[in-house]
Amino acid sequence: MPSQRSQKIKSFIAMDILEASHAMSRRGIDVVSFSLGEPDFQAPACVQEACIKAIQNGTTKYTHSQGSYVLREEIARHYQTKYGVTISPDQIIITQGTSPAFFLIFSTLLEKGDGVVLPNPHYPCDANFVEFLGGKNQFLKVHEEDDYQWDLKALKKIITKKTKALFVTSPSNPTGSVLTADVLKGIAKTKIPIVSDEIYHGLVYEGSEHTMLEFTNNCIVVGGFSKSYAMTGYRLGYLIAPPKYIRLMQKIQQNFFISANSFVQEAGIAALREGGFALANMRAEYNKRRLVMMQGLRDLGFKINYNPNGAFYIFVKSSHLRKNSYKLAFDILENAHVGVTPGIDFGSEGEGHLRFSYATSIPVIEEGLKRLKAYISSL
Amino acid sequence: MPSQRSQKIKSFIAMDILEASHAMSRRGIDVVSFSLGEPDFQAPACVQEACIKAIQNGTTKYTHSQGSYVLREEIARHYQTKYGVTISPDQIIITQGTSPAFFLIFSTLLEKGDGVVLPNPHYPCDANFVEFLGGKNQFLKVHEEDDYQWDLKALKKIITKKTKALFVTSPSNPTGSVLTADVLKGIAKTKIPIVSDEIYHGLVYEGSEHTMLEFTNNCIVVGGFSKSYAMTGYRLGYLIAPPKYIRLMQKIQQNFFISANSFVQEAGIAALREGGFALANMRAEYNKRRLVMMQGLRDLGFKINYNPNGAFYIFVKSSHLRKNSYKLAFDILENAHVGVTPGIDFGSEGEGHLRFSYATSIPVIEEGLKRLKAYISSL
Repeated sequence: MPSQRSQKIKSFIAMDILEASHAMSRRGIDVVSFSLGEPDFQAPACVQEACIKAIQNGTTKYTHSQGSYVLREEIARHYQTKYGVTISPDQIIITQGTSPAFFLIFSTLLEKGDGVVLPNPHYPCDANFVEFLGGKNQFLKVHEEDDYQWDLKALKKIITKKTKALFVTSPSNPTGSVLTADVLKGIAKTKIPIVSDEIYHGLVYEGSEHTMLEFTNNCIVVGGFSKSYAMTGYRLGYLIAPPKYIRLMQKIQQNFFISANSFVQEAGIAALREGGFALANMRAEYNKRRLVMMQGLRDLGFKINYNPNGAFYIFVKSSHLRKNSYKLAFDILENAHVGVTPGIDFGSEGEGHLRFSYATSIPVIEEGLKRLKAYISSL
Repeated sequence: MPSQRSQKIKSFIAMDILEASHAMSRRGIDVVSFSLGEPDFQAPACVQEACIKAIQNGTTKYTHSQGSYVLREEIARHYQTKYGVTISPDQIIITQGTSPAFFLIFSTLLEKGDGVVLPNPHYPCDANFVEFLGGKNQFLKVHEEDDYQWDLKALKKIITKKTKALFVTSPSNPTGSVLTADVLKGIAKTKIPIVSDEIYHGLVYEGSEHTMLEFTNNCIVVGGFSKSYAMTGYRLGYLIAPPKYIRLMQKIQQNFFISANSFVQEAGIAALREGGFALANMRAEYNKRRLVMMQGLRDLGFKINYNPNGAFYIFVKSSHLRKNSYKLAFDILENAHVGVTPGIDFGSEGEGHLRFSYATSIPVIEEGLKRLKAYISSL
């Protein structure tokens, strides 16, 4: 018999939609996808070139288990320059994308039965990381009318003695909302260790984002290159942790990963040193798409009563069309040939919603909106 | 407090030696390393070129969570051609090196307290994988006088109702011994699921190696590109499992890894399609080194009473020099400026031994042997 944990861990519903839409494409049907969490851009030229150069010059061996020291220096410099916080390269571990960082983190933080507070709705894997590694999820409901900010009073109420971590993601997947400095500060004041997923940093369109490190050192920050630098297939991320955790996480890294890919780490150095202009251009383009998508959704009768100000997602109530978001998403796929992600994928509070990704070009967004208009008027 | 598991998991002693030798190098001391588990070759040109081409043509996005179907087809074809076994691409999951494959495997196989049989001595991480994921190691002693083959009678005696897997590695790290077809067949006959680490396949110097799949389908095979194709820093491996486990492991992969690096998977396709000649050349060169190292060690008074016929390791008794292998290894490093790995790193049965890696050039091997000769005569 396979283990309980392997049977219990959930898959992505988003993947079911994706596979169904691929199956339709193979049947010759042209599907517009608003369901992807992946940039349609290519990584900046400087990133590609650095990666190629590293392969050619033989930077193709294991690196230090914590990762290239030069890359860790560049990450530290980035946090100093952008956020004014001082971290040491010794506090950083380079991982193959951000996902494995959560294995290192929750393996280190959690004993069986320990609690982790995370928002509902949330990125589906977040809850899976915690449960798979023995923890218990304590869901904090967040609401559109509060701009999907964390309610600090409600937070205090659900924290118990068993709560070992608060799991914050800003900008958020699925909502795209960005937590304010005041809310981050309030979360830090609880003194509970914070795991701060900052993978969508760099993709904020009005004002600017804050790292949790501005408010407390009692936090583990997770960041990466996949979203901001369009490097999903490169698999490059990192964690920044208080010194007391590093040796413990490094041992896990040595055993289960050895090190991250060596030449991809060189690509990461190039991204931080030379990729700023490309990032600014991509961000400007995402913002244009965001405005087109928001206006388009409003024109279709969806209400957006919060500011989807980061990442590349908009999360809207859809229960006026159909209560069951899973059935609605599949109906839209089948009949409008548009892929969207059902809100139920993101937790119980996501039910009755759909997530729209605008990580696709404006002509494609316009085509998708046109199809949705026809679909909705046919209901 | 960090978790018990994170405090208990062991690091590599090999890494301590490596770091000490790096520190000596920084002080200007020229250290000869016989401690590395990493080829000194570059990956074949076809591999580098395929990887670069994939970056240039934009194969830089997430792949299917199980990995590129074409790569999986090539792996299936490789097992058909080389071993005459038929597997489906659907039974394969591509991982970022072989290490994370063990996370997928033991997470899926083990409940808390379940037993796994593995040899003593063994690759240190193997025991760590099992314990970290809740299992208990059941060590089967293997002996030089038996060519480090598994003793099938002794195996039957230590199997209990709690034994959920047998963890086989052939060629072996640290001994380089290759299990015979008869022994593999005998292990398969126990009907206990087998985890077969075949990462050193391709590097066998007399006769040829067998995959566990020739003897049973009740096994999970782990293979990779790091050792045979000198692709350590690329981080590319795979597992082959019975269909009933695939969906379970795929869910874990989706959550914790999403997918392996996309362009590195293209490099893997090139390795299997076009890398055969380069592999044969590297194997021939390793064999020359092996013979030089064996003769050299014998000339230094080390006895080698088994056939180190695979991988790039020779494991020899060293207790006549000093009982404590850890102290001996550090003494050799300090005084002879030669890095070797103490046997204790590989379990209790490894104590009183040293592991010599010959993944380095013949002139370097000769220089190291010269230094060891001076060291030993000074004792």
